[in-house]
Amino acid sequence: MLKEAVFHRAMSPFVYKYDENTIHIRLQTKKNDVEHVELIWGDPYDWHTENPDDADWNFDPSKTNHWNTFETPMKRSGSDELYDYWFIDVVPPFRRLRYGFRLHDGQTTQVFTERGWFNEKPLDDTGYYFCVPYLNKIDVFTSPAWVKDTVWYQIFPDRFANGDPSNDPTGTLPWNSTEPTTTNLFGGDFQGVIDHIDYLVELGITGIYFCPIFKAKSNHKYDTIDYLEIDPQFGTKEKFKEMVDLLHENGIRIMLDAVFNHAGFHHEAFADIREHGSNSSYRDWFHLRDFPLVTEPMPNYDTFAFVPEMPKFNTENAEVKAYLLHVARYWVEEFGIDGWRLDVANEVDHAFWRDFRRVVKEANPETYILGEIWHDSQEWLLGDQFDAVMNYPFTNAALNFFALDKTKATAYANEMSHVLFSNTMNVNEVTFNLIGSHDTPRALTRAGHDKNKMRLLLLSMLTFSGSPVIYYGDEIGLDGDQDPGCRKCMPWDKEEQDLNLLMYTKHLLQLRQQHKTLANNGHISFVHADDETNSIVMRRTSEDGTYYIYFNNSNQQVTLPAPAAGQGMDLFSNSPLPSLEVTLPPYAGTIVQVL
Amino acid sequence: MLKEAVFHRAMSPFVYKYDENTIHIRLQTKKNDVEHVELIWGDPYDWHTENPDDADWNFDPSKTNHWNTFETPMKRSGSDELYDYWFIDVVPPFRRLRYGFRLHDGQTTQVFTERGWFNEKPLDDTGYYFCVPYLNKIDVFTSPAWVKDTVWYQIFPDRFANGDPSNDPTGTLPWNSTEPTTTNLFGGDFQGVIDHIDYLVELGITGIYFCPIFKAKSNHKYDTIDYLEIDPQFGTKEKFKEMVDLLHENGIRIMLDAVFNHAGFHHEAFADIREHGSNSSYRDWFHLRDFPLVTEPMPNYDTFAFVPEMPKFNTENAEVKAYLLHVARYWVEEFGIDGWRLDVANEVDHAFWRDFRRVVKEANPETYILGEIWHDSQEWLLGDQFDAVMNYPFTNAALNFFALDKTKATAYANEMSHVLFSNTMNVNEVTFNLIGSHDTPRALTRAGHDKNKMRLLLLSMLTFSGSPVIYYGDEIGLDGDQDPGCRKCMPWDKEEQDLNLLMYTKHLLQLRQQHKTLANNGHISFVHADDETNSIVMRRTSEDGTYYIYFNNSNQQVTLPAPAAGQGMDLFSNSPLPSLEVTLPPYAGTIVQVL
Repeated sequence: MLKEAVFHRAMSPFVYKYDENTIHIRLQTKKNDVEHVELIWGDPYDWHTENPDDADWNFDPSKTNHWNTFETPMKRSGSDELYDYWFIDVVPPFRRLRYGFRLHDGQTTQVFTERGWFNEKPLDDTGYYFCVPYLNKIDVFTSPAWVKDTVWYQIFPDRFANGDPSNDPTGTLPWNSTEPTTTNLFGGDFQGVIDHIDYLVELGITGIYFCPIFKAKSNHKYDTIDYLEIDPQFGTKEKFKEMVDLLHENGIRIMLDAVFNHAGFHHEAFADIREHGSNSSYRDWFHLRDFPLVTEPMPNYDTFAFVPEMPKFNTENAEVKAYLLHVARYWVEEFGIDGWRLDVANEVDHAFWRDFRRVVKEANPETYILGEIWHDSQEWLLGDQFDAVMNYPFTNAALNFFALDKTKATAYANEMSHVLFSNTMNVNEVTFNLIGSHDTPRALTRAGHDKNKMRLLLLSMLTFSGSPVIYYGDEIGLDGDQDPGCRKCMPWDKEEQDLNLLMYTKHLLQLRQQHKTLANNGHISFVHADDETNSIVMRRTSEDGTYYIYFNNSNQQVTLPAPAAGQGMDLFSNSPLPSLEVTLPPYAGTIVQVL
Repeated sequence: MLKEAVFHRAMSPFVYKYDENTIHIRLQTKKNDVEHVELIWGDPYDWHTENPDDADWNFDPSKTNHWNTFETPMKRSGSDELYDYWFIDVVPPFRRLRYGFRLHDGQTTQVFTERGWFNEKPLDDTGYYFCVPYLNKIDVFTSPAWVKDTVWYQIFPDRFANGDPSNDPTGTLPWNSTEPTTTNLFGGDFQGVIDHIDYLVELGITGIYFCPIFKAKSNHKYDTIDYLEIDPQFGTKEKFKEMVDLLHENGIRIMLDAVFNHAGFHHEAFADIREHGSNSSYRDWFHLRDFPLVTEPMPNYDTFAFVPEMPKFNTENAEVKAYLLHVARYWVEEFGIDGWRLDVANEVDHAFWRDFRRVVKEANPETYILGEIWHDSQEWLLGDQFDAVMNYPFTNAALNFFALDKTKATAYANEMSHVLFSNTMNVNEVTFNLIGSHDTPRALTRAGHDKNKMRLLLLSMLTFSGSPVIYYGDEIGLDGDQDPGCRKCMPWDKEEQDLNLLMYTKHLLQLRQQHKTLANNGHISFVHADDETNSIVMRRTSEDGTYYIYFNNSNQQVTLPAPAAGQGMDLFSNSPLPSLEVTLPPYAGTIVQVL
């Protein structure tokens, strides 16, 4: 047994409170090394021990049938390149849990506890074990229930639709008349969204994530001038309210972009410092290293990246904090928005986000809090800060396999498993899965404009655990390279839209809506991954059903076994599988429901 | 290279903010597997990359000399039974850090990043790396500076000294007239502490941790009746204030015991429920499963362990929270106490402790917050809850080796290293090290009444990183078995005190006071651990000096090499080492300073 590869600590995501009754426990072992594992568990104060020192706290066995430790097999619930992941959920009767692991590798049996390795279960000191001292409900990671069933649509506001030319700023270009640049404007606005609400409803999305809409200088609006004003090029507050209400009436939630890491160069506070230097009453609002402020050769104040137009807020400052938290509350309370996407969330302090959560959830406990973090986000996902993050690790694994041919089938299965086991199940259920955004090249462009690969990407995202998002236009075949290329105008002329891709996307959204197991309550496992044929079968199971999602990511037809003889229903053709096999054309996939 | 044994995640304690400029990084590898490791690091926005997608955010190399990633060797800073621990501290110029590891095992070289293993440093996507997005000062784990230099003295109030017989409750027994039981009383009080303040000052302790002093029914007072009243058997509030002021005048801080997990059976709120049942306005203050309340065969409400006299507070209830936070603030503000020790801290919710920290630090930012947790405490030690926990993992490692002969020298070194690498350095500097308490048999009893072993225990604790505590009487040879035996009356007759042990303890405290490296700012490493001779040499180094602490835990004389020829000063004899060797009698130790 390779003890060095065994990992568990009594901390999330290795152990966590799943709900007010249930604790989830995971153990990591070297792949294919350990044959089975039992969890040794019980109440910390009702533990079978031979140490009289401990008896004091223990349950009186003469009074009940307790005085027990239990041993329950764990499940090997997945694997990645190097590790197997063992899982068990436990409902401890008194909401307290002491536990250890017994591992068997066919030759030896060993017990692993917080104090290391033993040949036998240590009896003489219960303190040897791991511990979840008490399952306090308030410590359970919770996110709004509606998020699990939501499919998002991301809108870059200047580029979705121009519904009201009267609010176009000077220099606005005719719709789709040229390629997007870092500065040009096309007049997209709220009226444009209102005009196309039927399109969105028909598509089947149930949430919109808007890139910034507050008053700002640039076309992307990530350099905010006023967080309490709508940028006039998008419309008025009244128009915004009209749009929000209409979206809600149509079953669509709305999430705004909170750019709280940094202000814009022309924000009142920063402008005041530029004018008054060290005499400005705002001087502690930012991280200034010297006066007067300079931007060349590089800014002498902290910025987002090294961008002078984006001075970093000092979110530890009480005034800044009060100001931004007021903003956070204002748009929830006054306009009923349903979520905040937090730009550059990882560079803002944790203390700020804890208070942000308190304020926003007080305003409306059903508000979704989504952080922009591209890397391991564990420290933000403990329940006291965010509900979810943008799941770029998912994005990378999906693109590397389906779009870029950088990886093969087994690597894809390993990477997706790694994504799942890196976070708690609570998080996986609401994580924000994407295959592209305003910050990346478009998925279709990454896939070499191959529509079949694009379908496979959509299939993988829309059958995965989480709250997926479609970047506006991806559904009709919009392409575009890295920003600014990925921010083209949405083509509304049907001749410029790929209606087949649109139909496929709608179909997928319908299936996800009809079959809840495909959305969030289904356990995921990869039952087949073959590098020769570059094919994958992913199973999702829940008490509502069992589904197999088939992917053929090769230029050859592939034939794979059907999940269960004669009982498979192909959901795309809506007909029973004709044989004991599933045959997939090159670069195609399907979903089979087990009846 | 055994990749499966390599562990790092971008979360504490594997990476953490040590101070407002410095980031600490640790990597775990299989013991003796990897020969050297370099940290590959740089600013996330000034990273050498060949991917044009990333160039957007990158520093303009034409303007400065940047566009760099650095590679810096890490140090193998310690080992335990299975792993080597690699360490580095980094001061990133813009408070942002992207990093990965290059490992060499003599045959192969591999790069380890957040996305796994590579033969070469990945260049095409900076997102492959680990990340500390921004070093926000407010997120740094900070504790009061005074704690690092404090040596505590734990007092069980009924048993330290009876200075005022007039407040003795009915049934109080003559001092030390009989063995302690779970119910008897001996009249210890605040006046007793005041009377013996010279003793405490001479001993050299600089903080007192009092077990509970609030109004309660039992002799241990962990079943509180009124959190805002002093138990009359200890004195009045005026007397308490007099004692606190006197202690402060004598350079001694005071920490009280906050029993917030559970109330006492006779607390007003619980008494009201017992009287009025489901009609009580306090019914949501506890976790009640049924009415009327019963205690047999087991309580039908949540308790500490299964003790009916200790009903568990519902700390999620707003009234309970406000009440207990008022208590927390009251004793800090009105009486100037310096710390709170939190009883059964692990079973109270994290949300409560976050607010507790806010309230207490607002009242006085220099207040020490110490949680009673016996197991892995990482989730409480992220900077938002506790300053420290009672370091029972240290206790167990020390007792198993010095007192109980359960382990040998190498196991001791491994276990102590494991203790150090399980927590951040910030935590290790203020962790509350103990060799016994009111909840365990006394160290001397555990050591089979062997005074030499007792000295070794004191030597190990008082030269270790942290804020150590002496349980009252340990210094004069008081013994006692598990509670109630460990709560004997302090013998004040000098003939009943071991004055040699007392002198030894004083000497150790003086040395710790004089040589700061022995206290908290010295890096610890075990330079020798031999199971044959059961001897250990622990080195502590800082910019103030280098010290070697020698332990001979065998019944044979042991001769070990001196640290540096002719330059060693034996601190106990206060004389230069006479030779190139250090000779230790059976069960003895010493401290050698390198001059």
